[in-house]
Amino acid sequence: MNRDGLIAQLRGLLGDRVSTGDAVRDHHSRGESHHHGVLPDAVVFPTSTADVQAIVQACAAADCPMTAFGAGSSLEGHVVPLRRGVSIDLSRMNRVLRLSVEDLDVTVEAGVTRKQLEKHLQSTGLWFPLDPGADATIGGMAATRASGTTAVRYGTMRDAVMGLTVVTADGRAIRTGTRARKSSAGYDLTRLFVGAEGTLGIITEVTLRLHGRPEAVASATCWFDSIDEAVNSVITIVQLGIPVARVELLDETQMEAVNRHSHLNRPLAPTLFFEFHGLSDAAVEEHAKATGEIVAEHGGHEFARAVTPEERAKLWQARHDAYYAALALRPGSRGWTTDVCVPISRLAECIRETKADLADSPLVGPLVGHVGDGNFHLVMPVNPESEPEMAAAEHLTDRLVARALAMGGTCSGEHGVGIGKMRFLEAEHGREALDVMRAIKTALDPRNLMNPGKVLPPI
Amino acid sequence: MNRDGLIAQLRGLLGDRVSTGDAVRDHHSRGESHHHGVLPDAVVFPTSTADVQAIVQACAAADCPMTAFGAGSSLEGHVVPLRRGVSIDLSRMNRVLRLSVEDLDVTVEAGVTRKQLEKHLQSTGLWFPLDPGADATIGGMAATRASGTTAVRYGTMRDAVMGLTVVTADGRAIRTGTRARKSSAGYDLTRLFVGAEGTLGIITEVTLRLHGRPEAVASATCWFDSIDEAVNSVITIVQLGIPVARVELLDETQMEAVNRHSHLNRPLAPTLFFEFHGLSDAAVEEHAKATGEIVAEHGGHEFARAVTPEERAKLWQARHDAYYAALALRPGSRGWTTDVCVPISRLAECIRETKADLADSPLVGPLVGHVGDGNFHLVMPVNPESEPEMAAAEHLTDRLVARALAMGGTCSGEHGVGIGKMRFLEAEHGREALDVMRAIKTALDPRNLMNPGKVLPPI
Repeated sequence: MNRDGLIAQLRGLLGDRVSTGDAVRDHHSRGESHHHGVLPDAVVFPTSTADVQAIVQACAAADCPMTAFGAGSSLEGHVVPLRRGVSIDLSRMNRVLRLSVEDLDVTVEAGVTRKQLEKHLQSTGLWFPLDPGADATIGGMAATRASGTTAVRYGTMRDAVMGLTVVTADGRAIRTGTRARKSSAGYDLTRLFVGAEGTLGIITEVTLRLHGRPEAVASATCWFDSIDEAVNSVITIVQLGIPVARVELLDETQMEAVNRHSHLNRPLAPTLFFEFHGLSDAAVEEHAKATGEIVAEHGGHEFARAVTPEERAKLWQARHDAYYAALALRPGSRGWTTDVCVPISRLAECIRETKADLADSPLVGPLVGHVGDGNFHLVMPVNPESEPEMAAAEHLTDRLVARALAMGGTCSGEHGVGIGKMRFLEAEHGREALDVMRAIKTALDPRNLMNPGKVLPPI
Repeated sequence: MNRDGLIAQLRGLLGDRVSTGDAVRDHHSRGESHHHGVLPDAVVFPTSTADVQAIVQACAAADCPMTAFGAGSSLEGHVVPLRRGVSIDLSRMNRVLRLSVEDLDVTVEAGVTRKQLEKHLQSTGLWFPLDPGADATIGGMAATRASGTTAVRYGTMRDAVMGLTVVTADGRAIRTGTRARKSSAGYDLTRLFVGAEGTLGIITEVTLRLHGRPEAVASATCWFDSIDEAVNSVITIVQLGIPVARVELLDETQMEAVNRHSHLNRPLAPTLFFEFHGLSDAAVEEHAKATGEIVAEHGGHEFARAVTPEERAKLWQARHDAYYAALALRPGSRGWTTDVCVPISRLAECIRETKADLADSPLVGPLVGHVGDGNFHLVMPVNPESEPEMAAAEHLTDRLVARALAMGGTCSGEHGVGIGKMRFLEAEHGREALDVMRAIKTALDPRNLMNPGKVLPPI
């Protein structure tokens, strides 16, 4: 069947929830980042798992590629419909289907966003801690195995997802996982689809493990003369097992960007942002005190507590705006964001060598890191039309990833593979392991219609 | 090639590390539990991943089934070589390959046992918290996605395993995962092989995440007039987010068995065993105090602290001996152990109905539960040669699993599927999800030579 016939069939199924308008197609051609867009032939807006099944069945019958789209906040080009076809926008699947306060879990449709869920939980005493910064959809966060500032304490989407509903390449809906807190009953399909970036099926519903809202919370900041001292403080904190809930590093360039963007007046120096969660003020006080002693030993200046919700909100808003603050250094630019994660013992060395590379390049690149996990980003504002800039960013990324892999790390801590990291997968996993991934892909999507051209590099 | 030819070839590869003696074959015919054994044609003892590759290649060429064997402590018949062939005993792969105190991780060969690892870590300040009771091998624990008493705080093997070396059905060795604490770089092969019970490949090396040994530890016990009160205490503790490190329930029957087996004199009443870990005595004190208040509100009696290492060791030794204490109720019996896990809000109801079933059956079944996770076991001593006993145990298990699944739970919290739970997998996951598991199995082991007859029920 040709694409026109397919689109007519989709209109029969979905009515006006099919769009071929230029603006809508353009919006679905790309995510946030520097990756070049490709226009899909059509965009569809399912409102149920049954809709997604019907769409997938129609596309499969027409041999038409399908790419899922959530909030469009992804950074590695996951949502770019490289081979055109149909972009499946899940944003209208935005119902909270079930909430159990007793069991601390919730089932949501894939298009529910993080902030929408936060709002839904506000009066329940419960909390979904994962926070990648952007107001991503829960389905997108699951598909990319996202994490963010709280992963050091609460884990990543790998840990948070208890079960999924997934529409497979042949249009069947499967359920994975249970509501039990643990299980050893069969292959872990949940973890297979989490992080598969829509290449093995489309996630339509997600069951998440929640946490009780911490009884006591406190934040603190501290600045350092050198980034090494900051990182070494964090290494000690992690090694001693102090249960920090967040620990974020912003370098002097990022602090300058944040000061400008968020109208703050913080020292232009490497700075750590901490958050502590506990059962009581005494517990939080103990964690903060132990942390304060460690940073002091490493030359930290002005370990300053922010205890009121307002102070905390202001501090973390500045942290969350770091990406946009970095882009604002060059208005009109797009972000080229790196995302390596290394064993914590190598973090200071990795950051030091990377900053030396950056100093040798024509690019500016504020650094922000979820340093408790060994994960850090450079956000480099680039003009995607400038070949020299893109080449410089690519060169720096290649060197950075090679460094991280040599240290036992990964090319992607939390942003996923998409288009941007495919070229590193063989170096990271080896040819044999990639062959196993390819065998799984072929078994579950034999005609390569689910988000083709992503994750697995061509042979 | 016939089996004799294969065995000759294996002797060529391994010399005297191939056994066809009756005693050795008998030892490798079964695990701990009631499942009937099958004699393998031969048992081989590799000492390296390269050995395992050579064995798998030889077996594959001869179309010969392969079943991995660790400590033989599994409870669902995973190690029974149902279609005979070669039992691959990994116990001589028992080297600790690498330890990083700085990064809190370790790489071991699959045959290293939990206690061997504990001993290796003794002077390092580090700790591997997972504790399934038996002195299982780390490879076996990974293959069955084991957990145990500390999962409520430290998670299961799903969470503890950072990476694997796996020999696939075609004899290639792949590496999965990295030493970074998180990654979103490609399909999560680690989590696919964890819990696959050797049906997709043989795990030969495991990289584990470790923890700092807790600075402060305390234990406590408390008994109740009714099991409902005990369980409701735990539900409240979990919902309030009190970070208990262990919380175990033993019912009155299990306490009687433990008293007898471990020469204790505890009340014959449902009893909770707690352990608290913290940064300081003050933190542990806070957790214990909050717990004590909750159990008092739920009618708990004699919330008693055991603070010295000796008291703690005695207490937990009794808990760990629970399985053998239950079997000792009927000398010469084998254990038929159930293993459901349900959402915590349904736990009291599930236990109540199950104990009513047990009262109606001819069997005795002490109950022991990792109740913070919603996971509990009945250990029913049975005579595997008695058809009525086996039928009664099967009937009770069928009803128990149906109940757990209706509550949103799982047929296996931590023991795996093996032979014993296969018949429940379709009810738990649905036919479509099982089809996806079968597609993966076929893709990775097209000739069904890796531990055939396990995990996936025949169609």
